Amino acid sequence: MHANTARLLITCDDASGIIAAVAGFIAQHQGNILDADQHSDREARKFFMRVEIDLNGFRLDEQTFAAAWRPVSDQFRMKWEMHWGNRIKRMAVLVTKAGHCLSDLLWRWRTGELRVELPIVIGNHPDLEPDTKAFGVPFRCVPVRDGNKAKQEGEILSLLSKYDIDFVVLARYMRILSPDFVAAYPQRIINIHHSFLPAFAGAKPYHQAHARGVKIIGATSHYVTDNLDQGPIIAQETLDVGHRDSVEDLIRKGRDLERVVLARAIHHHVEDEILVSGNKTVVFD
Amino acid sequence: MHANTARLLITCDDASGIIAAVAGFIAQHQGNILDADQHSDREARKFFMRVEIDLNGFRLDEQTFAAAWRPVSDQFRMKWEMHWGNRIKRMAVLVTKAGHCLSDLLWRWRTGELRVELPIVIGNHPDLEPDTKAFGVPFRCVPVRDGNKAKQEGEILSLLSKYDIDFVVLARYMRILSPDFVAAYPQRIINIHHSFLPAFAGAKPYHQAHARGVKIIGATSHYVTDNLDQGPIIAQETLDVGHRDSVEDLIRKGRDLERVVLARAIHHHVEDEILVSGNKTVVFD
Amino acid sequence: MHANTARLLITCDDASGIIAAVAGFIAQHQGNILDADQHSDREARKFFMRVEIDLNGFRLDEQTFAAAWRPVSDQFRMKWEMHWGNRIKRMAVLVTKAGHCLSDLLWRWRTGELRVELPIVIGNHPDLEPDTKAFGVPFRCVPVRDGNKAKQEGEILSLLSKYDIDFVVLARYMRILSPDFVAAYPQRIINIHHSFLPAFAGAKPYHQAHARGVKIIGATSHYVTDNLDQGPIIAQETLDVGHRDSVEDLIRKGRDLERVVLARAIHHHVEDEILVSGNKTVVFD
Amino acid sequence: MHANTARLLITCDDASGIIAAVAGFIAQHQGNILDADQHSDREARKFFMRVEIDLNGFRLDEQTFAAAWRPVSDQFRMKWEMHWGNRIKRMAVLVTKAGHCLSDLLWRWRTGELRVELPIVIGNHPDLEPDTKAFGVPFRCVPVRDGNKAKQEGEILSLLSKYDIDFVVLARYMRILSPDFVAAYPQRIINIHHSFLPAFAGAKPYHQAHARGVKIIGATSHYVTDNLDQGPIIAQETLDVGHRDSVEDLIRKGRDLERVVLARAIHHHVEDEILVSGNKTVVFD
Repeated sequence: MHANTARLLITCDDASGIIAAVAGFIAQHQGNILDADQHSDREARKFFMRVEIDLNGFRLDEQTFAAAWRPVSDQFRMKWEMHWGNRIKRMAVLVTKAGHCLSDLLWRWRTGELRVELPIVIGNHPDLEPDTKAFGVPFRCVPVRDGNKAKQEGEILSLLSKYDIDFVVLARYMRILSPDFVAAYPQRIINIHHSFLPAFAGAKPYHQAHARGVKIIGATSHYVTDNLDQGPIIAQETLDVGHRDSVEDLIRKGRDLERVVLARAIHHHVEDEILVSGNKTVVFD
Repeated sequence: MHANTARLLITCDDASGIIAAVAGFIAQHQGNILDADQHSDREARKFFMRVEIDLNGFRLDEQTFAAAWRPVSDQFRMKWEMHWGNRIKRMAVLVTKAGHCLSDLLWRWRTGELRVELPIVIGNHPDLEPDTKAFGVPFRCVPVRDGNKAKQEGEILSLLSKYDIDFVVLARYMRILSPDFVAAYPQRIINIHHSFLPAFAGAKPYHQAHARGVKIIGATSHYVTDNLDQGPIIAQETLDVGHRDSVEDLIRKGRDLERVVLARAIHHHVEDEILVSGNKTVVFD
Repeated sequence: MHANTARLLITCDDASGIIAAVAGFIAQHQGNILDADQHSDREARKFFMRVEIDLNGFRLDEQTFAAAWRPVSDQFRMKWEMHWGNRIKRMAVLVTKAGHCLSDLLWRWRTGELRVELPIVIGNHPDLEPDTKAFGVPFRCVPVRDGNKAKQEGEILSLLSKYDIDFVVLARYMRILSPDFVAAYPQRIINIHHSFLPAFAGAKPYHQAHARGVKIIGATSHYVTDNLDQGPIIAQETLDVGHRDSVEDLIRKGRDLERVVLARAIHHHVEDEILVSGNKTVVFD
Repeated sequence: MHANTARLLITCDDASGIIAAVAGFIAQHQGNILDADQHSDREARKFFMRVEIDLNGFRLDEQTFAAAWRPVSDQFRMKWEMHWGNRIKRMAVLVTKAGHCLSDLLWRWRTGELRVELPIVIGNHPDLEPDTKAFGVPFRCVPVRDGNKAKQEGEILSLLSKYDIDFVVLARYMRILSPDFVAAYPQRIINIHHSFLPAFAGAKPYHQAHARGVKIIGATSHYVTDNLDQGPIIAQETLDVGHRDSVEDLIRKGRDLERVVLARAIHHHVEDEILVSGNKTVVFD
């Protein structure tokens, strides 16, 4: 069914008549709107819209859409993307040693729950190669050594390019990416951080949480930007803990949160449900 | 601000071009769409839409809207309602002896958190008269005695009519309403049931929950229909409990759930965010 | 560390002096109490206790404990179990076709998160054999055909006996076990049901939930008894859903709940944290 | 029932035999343990215990307990408190202008849900005087003006002393207390902060949360120490929010969290369920 739909994502300054113009355009070209969601940020005076179009009968296609659409998008100075459903997104996963998120993603990918292609998993350590290969997915180890960060990142970027990757998932990848790397995949690198950000950014958040004596722990998935753990938040979840929970208990319980929150964020990304506005997300679910 | 907006609620069979027609109509009459939300139930082939319109500059008003709108509504055989924002809904609350939900609603009403008028509270017992009057709200006791149910309901209906009530809240009102009473306020009577329905319908749900040994309790607000605790669910919430919790603990902890879930349901109703489809609700929040 | 601890579980009629007797006994034999938890059910006048003992220095062992302990247990007519930490529980998993819980358990077993041995997975369909074998765990298919239920259950019981199984997990096993089978593993068969019981017992709970229009879904793990979905509840969890969620969405979102709730129940069982009282559980976590 | 029970709270270095000594002591004096809970912090090597004793038949009372108990408490160098159930704690509430927590506490106090005496509410503004007096509770306004902080705090301390207050609740009191004030009520001042601490400490947490674009908000109750919003956390709760929520929505939704979290923390305090260890709490619920 996805193959016969397309998703149109629109961001522009708020104004009267946008919905009428968009819906009118689609109707004029015999498209049927399956789902429409919009949001007006009154403070920022910004307008966000997601439209899912049934392509059966739609008279435009990848070749002809942009030209036909230009008058509308020009009128409202839209920033827009059109995602054609027959195009399956290609995801790469970066890992270090912790395998819980990776195993979860491999399972969701293989059963079709995540509608992605997964041509490559890249580790800076070799530990997760067997798990990855057990699912028939290629694994490449690109280790980091003192002073070779630029070279290592270059190798990863080459792999991403070679495998025609659309977006990157950091599944507990324990290295900070350079601004150049981040700039190569703007709003297309998804990280999972094991705390309810902005609390406990940085290293060892479960240790920080235990030391502070919080009664809840959390996990946060966000797009990666140049500022560590400061990118636009996509999804968060929390869990009650108590004085009996050791750091090890927090780590164990937190793994379940991390898996679910990361998968949820990827699901939103894959279904083209996320629009980024400054350092925040609009998630149409 | 609300006074200058209107909310249009639409239900019809699903079809192409509805959004374009609605948005086009509003634009044509110089209305600005502040918020639009729609949902297509593909199974039932039904279409639901809620549009919030900025009335500044809108060329239609309560007198002229229906006639102008008829061609569009006829084309798609719409069931529709237009709620003009300058009209504050009038709420009546029915109670028995338990005062936690009533006190909460009185507080939310008085502080303006709930945008309603509250001309009358009606009890089948006199217990909550002092609490009600302390907020300056009239209280009427209409007791139930053997065999006088029809008469008692008649008195309540007279009061509702006299005070021009738009919708009724059962804030732990412990009597079952007759079909005739329910028919007088279709989808305009909101009940709070102290369990996560459909579990533990009927009497003493916390006792049932305790006897069953559940690890979560819940509360459910729903529109009242002829079938006890079977009406369309508006909001639900749950809370973890454990073996240490006595029935009294469940009752105490549950009160917090009930207050919040009932207030949330009323908020959705007051903001015209609920559409009913068969025995289910579409809640555009 | 677990190898040097033991867990003593006690159930008896409530009385004065039980804790003093138990703690005194342990101290007298040079045991150190690492953790003690007790609960008095005042309604049922029952007493429940779990004591974790550091075996370093403890002067009793598997051979000598029962005789030394008898005077105390006789005095209070205790039902008791002593779980020695060097004994790893042996778990069998029964499955049908849905693999999400199985994959999750295999992962938790292999990484050591679940402290169990997993000598066998048994399916009534062959579908999950590859997933199981990929983890190096033997898989046996024991199919059900018309009229052979007794024979099929006999084969499974033989396997459980052959592999010296301590407890059985029904990881979305879609057959109802006979009373004879259940009687062979009292309070040692753990099921996951994909609803917040007692709501939506029986078949297709997500379809039932969708038809009812609930705003939350849940999952429940419980010990299996002769009454379908009526056994003592060990753990439950819920998740918010809405009108946009199709049955397929509920199934997808529910899988995450089922995995977590089942794993949590098994964790409690493995750590000897559960006492059963009538049709309810006391869970000391 | 509470009048016939006492709660013994113990903190000491971890050691063998503590539970046996405590339970033995109580049994020796004909006390019946209704509830016992203990926790060993293995990292800090600290032991915490709460014992609830049925006083029927107990041969010690407020006059004789301390002397009889001294040998046990000396042996383990215990820090301990004994709370006799016939002594109702006296609570003072400090407020500014926001009344939602105060109204909630007044209601819980009047219905007996909170087992406290409430002899005085103190505001640094007069706004909440009518609400307080409507419940028959005295209200005193002690305004803050430039440079008079010491004097104002002195007046409040005099009132607390005059009314024989046991503990103080800051129900959205918008002034920072001086170290001298805090030192007068160590671990007896409970604050509600409207964020999931340590995120968004300080002023305007909902504005901070909105600016950061979090997908959950929270509330935290904690004991007040000299470090703003850094004291030992007693209870926390979170709530999902989304891009449609304005700052005003967060404030409205957050009020429900604040009320419940503050009431829960006070309940724990009143029931003598909290032990403080460094900057963390052990909460035996």
